Amino acid sequence: MKFNGLNVRIGKQVKLGKNVEIGDDTIIYDNVTIGDNTIISNHCIIGEPANAYYQDRKNYQQKETIIGENSLIRSHTIIYAGNQLGHHFSTGHFVVLRENNTFGNYCNVGTRSEIHGYVTVGNYARLHSNVSLGQRTQVGNFVFLAPYVGTTDDPLPPSMIALPSQIGDFSILAAHVTLAPNVKIGKHCMIGLKSTVNRDISDFSLAVGSSARRIMDIRVMKSPHFQGNYYPWMYQFSRGLPWHEIGFDAWAMANGVEIPPKLEPITIS
Amino acid sequence: MKFNGLNVRIGKQVKLGKNVEIGDDTIIYDNVTIGDNTIISNHCIIGEPANAYYQDRKNYQQKETIIGENSLIRSHTIIYAGNQLGHHFSTGHFVVLRENNTFGNYCNVGTRSEIHGYVTVGNYARLHSNVSLGQRTQVGNFVFLAPYVGTTDDPLPPSMIALPSQIGDFSILAAHVTLAPNVKIGKHCMIGLKSTVNRDISDFSLAVGSSARRIMDIRVMKSPHFQGNYYPWMYQFSRGLPWHEIGFDAWAMANGVEIPPKLEPITIS
Amino acid sequence: MKFNGLNVRIGKQVKLGKNVEIGDDTIIYDNVTIGDNTIISNHCIIGEPANAYYQDRKNYQQKETIIGENSLIRSHTIIYAGNQLGHHFSTGHFVVLRENNTFGNYCNVGTRSEIHGYVTVGNYARLHSNVSLGQRTQVGNFVFLAPYVGTTDDPLPPSMIALPSQIGDFSILAAHVTLAPNVKIGKHCMIGLKSTVNRDISDFSLAVGSSARRIMDIRVMKSPHFQGNYYPWMYQFSRGLPWHEIGFDAWAMANGVEIPPKLEPITIS
Repeated sequence: MKFNGLNVRIGKQVKLGKNVEIGDDTIIYDNVTIGDNTIISNHCIIGEPANAYYQDRKNYQQKETIIGENSLIRSHTIIYAGNQLGHHFSTGHFVVLRENNTFGNYCNVGTRSEIHGYVTVGNYARLHSNVSLGQRTQVGNFVFLAPYVGTTDDPLPPSMIALPSQIGDFSILAAHVTLAPNVKIGKHCMIGLKSTVNRDISDFSLAVGSSARRIMDIRVMKSPHFQGNYYPWMYQFSRGLPWHEIGFDAWAMANGVEIPPKLEPITIS
Repeated sequence: MKFNGLNVRIGKQVKLGKNVEIGDDTIIYDNVTIGDNTIISNHCIIGEPANAYYQDRKNYQQKETIIGENSLIRSHTIIYAGNQLGHHFSTGHFVVLRENNTFGNYCNVGTRSEIHGYVTVGNYARLHSNVSLGQRTQVGNFVFLAPYVGTTDDPLPPSMIALPSQIGDFSILAAHVTLAPNVKIGKHCMIGLKSTVNRDISDFSLAVGSSARRIMDIRVMKSPHFQGNYYPWMYQFSRGLPWHEIGFDAWAMANGVEIPPKLEPITIS
Repeated sequence: MKFNGLNVRIGKQVKLGKNVEIGDDTIIYDNVTIGDNTIISNHCIIGEPANAYYQDRKNYQQKETIIGENSLIRSHTIIYAGNQLGHHFSTGHFVVLRENNTFGNYCNVGTRSEIHGYVTVGNYARLHSNVSLGQRTQVGNFVFLAPYVGTTDDPLPPSMIALPSQIGDFSILAAHVTLAPNVKIGKHCMIGLKSTVNRDISDFSLAVGSSARRIMDIRVMKSPHFQGNYYPWMYQFSRGLPWHEIGFDAWAMANGVEIPPKLEPITIS
């Protein structure tokens, strides 16, 4: 039904793996490498030239763009030259990956998200719709960014100063969270809905507000929606994650990943 | 001038009504039904296959997609399989309707809005640009959602718990309002600019802030921009609405719609 | 490499200047004028008909659309009929310019920004990604609007009342700033991250919060990221700006632009 491959235009030095499928009206520019079994859907542009192309077309060098195997690029997505995307990478629609980002394996970038360039993301990071990551943002492994999460990088706009932010492994940013430049969020954190983060947040924090403050250790947080403690979430949620069959601790031990120390839950008497 | 119908690709079991016009570069997949006099503009995808298609293409069943008569789908819009859209439905550009939403008649979904699936919307709902409705959100009749309004559904991200929100008839959510999961907004409410709603809001509330609190009955609200009481708004505004010629009360009585009880305005002495 | 000009459709009364390049799958409707050396990239729609087209196609008059010389329209951008865009105008991807906006020279409109119509913008204004300007917003010269800045125009939604906002020359709005209708921001202001502006802001204000209040004169603001006073920013930042080689004061004197009066920095003892 899909992927008729009509009206597709493919540039030079393009390497397509086995079973690659390409949708209609898609344009693939020069020096793009696409892994086996990957799908590029309709109306996409892969290897979009960087801004330097417009400044000096004759001397422009198109960097290599790599999309790993078993990936799925949904329609109307634009991936600039110089992106290096791991295997099992997937996007929603209308995604824009500006130049020279690096994503690990099994990452997802949701509909309309924009990654502004030179961003590094670990493995199994899940960015929902409308996430906006400023240049050089560093995102760890197993990070969840909810819709409309954004990071910024210029503390004195307009300036040439760029101070990117960092988000640690296993951390969760709820919808509409905004990070000021130069903020470091630790591991296993949860930042609450619509918070603005202006200062560093230590590991295992539940932080909320504008500017966001740590209100408790996430490991003692109670919710009416779950009996017991939900966080660290890896013990409750494993859909699509590598510990799905054996549990987090067994997987972590086998893979050299630190097991988060447990805290006793606080009893509300 | 428009709708040359060039480079259009149409799948199997597609039923086009009379006078349907289709723009250039548009793709219509299988099992789509489009009512009379409806326009599908350029660069659209109608009947986009659900995620199940990628998991098991051989056994994938493409649900029927229905777009009612006299509708207008603007360019670069993506409508997934399984949507049921009433007549006089319209969209802006770059809209994404994920799978299995149901819209009544005379609804509008603005540019870049995303409806995340299994959402139900009544009649005459107007969603402006960049509205994001989480899965299974329920929206009543004559609801106005301003730009960047968003609803969420996961109270413990990441989890399998989905707690959608509800928005009652005739309610207005101003720009950049965010709803936490599991929130019920009553009828005839107004939620102020950029508020975050964490708890239920009763009928006729003017509610503002983060988290949003009822600050008065909307029927006694004064504004420098209108002499007298503007709300309930149906007595002041009728453009494109069914009571335009006969007035709200006459229309409501003829159609079995409850007439909102009046309150005396507070006199500021 | 780019701009093969495949599958391009061009309407009537379209005037293309010298060296105009047009990308693949782009549609240019009637009565469009494009200046010399301008690039229109792939998947764009230029001269998109206004809503009146759908109401009465026979009597519809397509207004002229003008894009100045040396401009760059990136892919998937939609420019409605009636826009008048100066020279050296550029856009990101997925931009929507609704009908009848006027932009000066050297302006940039970032990816996914939407300009809702009848908006006027001066020269050298830089709108980043996801900026949303309500109808008839007035933006001055050398204004920087960071990602997700938005202006609104209806104080009593839904109503026919439209009260646009104004943003003065040299002012900076940080990311996620929202303006209520009818707000006037003066010259040389800085509005802080995610603020909501409900009232007028006087010249040279640093204003933050919801609703935003002036907390100091921007000229005395200190930052750990810069020695001395960074603002007025024109003395520290000139990339792509006309005073790049001669400095702001010399340029301002030569061009009849007011030189901002200096304030003594406050000494923190």
